[in-house]
Amino acid sequence: MALQKHLLNDPESLVLDSLAGLCAVNNQLVLDPPSKVVYNSHRDRSKVALICGGGSGHEPSHAGFVGEGMLSAAVCGHVFASPNAAQVRRGMDLVENDAGTLILVKNYTGDVLNFGLAAEQYAAEHADKSDRVKFIVVGDDVAVGRTQGGLVGRRGLAGVVLVYKIAGALAAEGATLEEVYAVAQWVSGRVGTIGVGLEHCHVPGTASPSHSLGTSEIEIGLGIHNEPGNQRLSCIPPLSELMVTLLDLITLTTDPERAYLPFQNDGKDEVVLLVNNLGGMSELELGGVVRAAHEELQKRQIVVRRVISGTFMVNMHGVSLDPELILLPDESQHARLLHFTCFAASSGRVGRPESR
Amino acid sequence: MALQKHLLNDPESLVLDSLAGLCAVNNQLVLDPPSKVVYNSHRDRSKVALICGGGSGHEPSHAGFVGEGMLSAAVCGHVFASPNAAQVRRGMDLVENDAGTLILVKNYTGDVLNFGLAAEQYAAEHADKSDRVKFIVVGDDVAVGRTQGGLVGRRGLAGVVLVYKIAGALAAEGATLEEVYAVAQWVSGRVGTIGVGLEHCHVPGTASPSHSLGTSEIEIGLGIHNEPGNQRLSCIPPLSELMVTLLDLITLTTDPERAYLPFQNDGKDEVVLLVNNLGGMSELELGGVVRAAHEELQKRQIVVRRVISGTFMVNMHGVSLDPELILLPDESQHARLLHFTCFAASSGRVGRPESR
Repeated sequence: MALQKHLLNDPESLVLDSLAGLCAVNNQLVLDPPSKVVYNSHRDRSKVALICGGGSGHEPSHAGFVGEGMLSAAVCGHVFASPNAAQVRRGMDLVENDAGTLILVKNYTGDVLNFGLAAEQYAAEHADKSDRVKFIVVGDDVAVGRTQGGLVGRRGLAGVVLVYKIAGALAAEGATLEEVYAVAQWVSGRVGTIGVGLEHCHVPGTASPSHSLGTSEIEIGLGIHNEPGNQRLSCIPPLSELMVTLLDLITLTTDPERAYLPFQNDGKDEVVLLVNNLGGMSELELGGVVRAAHEELQKRQIVVRRVISGTFMVNMHGVSLDPELILLPDESQHARLLHFTCFAASSGRVGRPESR
Repeated sequence: MALQKHLLNDPESLVLDSLAGLCAVNNQLVLDPPSKVVYNSHRDRSKVALICGGGSGHEPSHAGFVGEGMLSAAVCGHVFASPNAAQVRRGMDLVENDAGTLILVKNYTGDVLNFGLAAEQYAAEHADKSDRVKFIVVGDDVAVGRTQGGLVGRRGLAGVVLVYKIAGALAAEGATLEEVYAVAQWVSGRVGTIGVGLEHCHVPGTASPSHSLGTSEIEIGLGIHNEPGNQRLSCIPPLSELMVTLLDLITLTTDPERAYLPFQNDGKDEVVLLVNNLGGMSELELGGVVRAAHEELQKRQIVVRRVISGTFMVNMHGVSLDPELILLPDESQHARLLHFTCFAASSGRVGRPESR
């Protein structure tokens, strides 16, 4: 059973209350309440702006990553509901700048529609600088097979955070919109994520979830809005066994239905491993998961160049996690991209000090 | 009902597995498996070393805070069980240095006994430099009344993290052991924390918890090992009402049984507010809690100089939180201590980049 207790004043005001709390932690952040946009008021307007957003309930994504070197603004909807195009359009105005804006969204119909519409409205209003907005859709959920995904494609999971971490670091260095777009697009084609859920989540102010997991059941491929996964196991396998299944889904290229990432599996693949706490999992267990993923990758002779672990994108507060791999290029950009994946000191959540 | 599903290989190896995972994230950290000590292999031996530790199950505390500007080493026990004196003694040797060592522990009998014993053993073995080790016990849980606490005093909660954050920043600046000890002692006398639990936690490999909370019950003053709080409410009040009760317990000085902190309540008190996710709470709700705490403090004319929010110390993975206040001094050290409370870029968890 999903835990259905919440600490709040009113489910209706929860998103705005939470965003106000975030801005109290980091005084460089400003909330525009009517549009639910959080933006970095101290950002450098000579540099490319990055906008992300979507339904709430996935915190710290995305408003928690507004800050220097990452997002310029996040546009937030209600819990699990996309913001509308007017909200997004307002967000674009709030980060109006000289270098252009890159919009990144996770692959969900509402987000693609509303953020895309806002980008088109901007282009129509600014015929002289219609090339100043670019748009990327990130779909990294390898649980969704090609047939199942159909025209819609893979759902977006925590992969988008790595994409904008890298794009944000590049923008902070002064790269042009074309450069930031090209790298973000390239990265988003090489990131794969697989979720696993021990429990579904409950949205404050709503009825119980219509389906939940049995006392010893787990679900592989669970989405961030309780979307069904691609298999349920009636009892939880030992972690090292489970990890084989999870990493097969990301790295194997033998099943054309699921082979999304260009792994060579020749001992030369190099990756960044991100283990995301999809919500409610203890850090004690998360550390064990990191070890298991790291060891399984080593067994497969996949070189792990960096390991990142933490809470990046959640499904409200079910209990679940998702290991995520980004495949690094075998070329000169390699070292640079690797450095860009370092989250130290770039998250809006940590609060900027007055000094030191 | 506490969630009793876990992702692991073996409850017996979970702590070591998790610590190995942590070291994979941050390659400056080294694990000594026999003693379950995690230490910073890159630390500057000319500076005061800080050691903390205790039972596991509270991650990221404490091993997740080993790193530059914070802990030199963390000594870890099994889940909810103190490490023994030999483990602690080994930890002291691993951070042997020229400037001395400060040991900080949360106020629990096992920790005070075993860390204290190790400090005494060290002093006995090094008669010439017995003044090179100092010892601080932090008890910040204001749920424990003076009568109830008796000789043992307040339990330790997340307050110890703020104490060693400040002490670690001071040590990194090159302060002497006496200076670091004096400031840490002073801070630990001015930090107060109150927990609130929506659900108890379950320890992997053990039976169900003997007591749990009803479907709409919450418990105020819940400890980090399922210790009973000082009151249960049969239904969850609106957050702003609950916050009045919580902050009363920290700030009021009218009840001598509970008046631990020297608040003046004259409009001149200044504090740092830390809202700790005690485990399993969504960041969406946590943001709302931050806002509610901030607003209630403003109503009381208590000046909030910094707000910190995140997961610092958990009770495995129940669902609970604890607001924590540290009362700042009205003196010249004020600004300096305030700067020391900034967690940006000092946590071992973020992983040190090779550069950038």
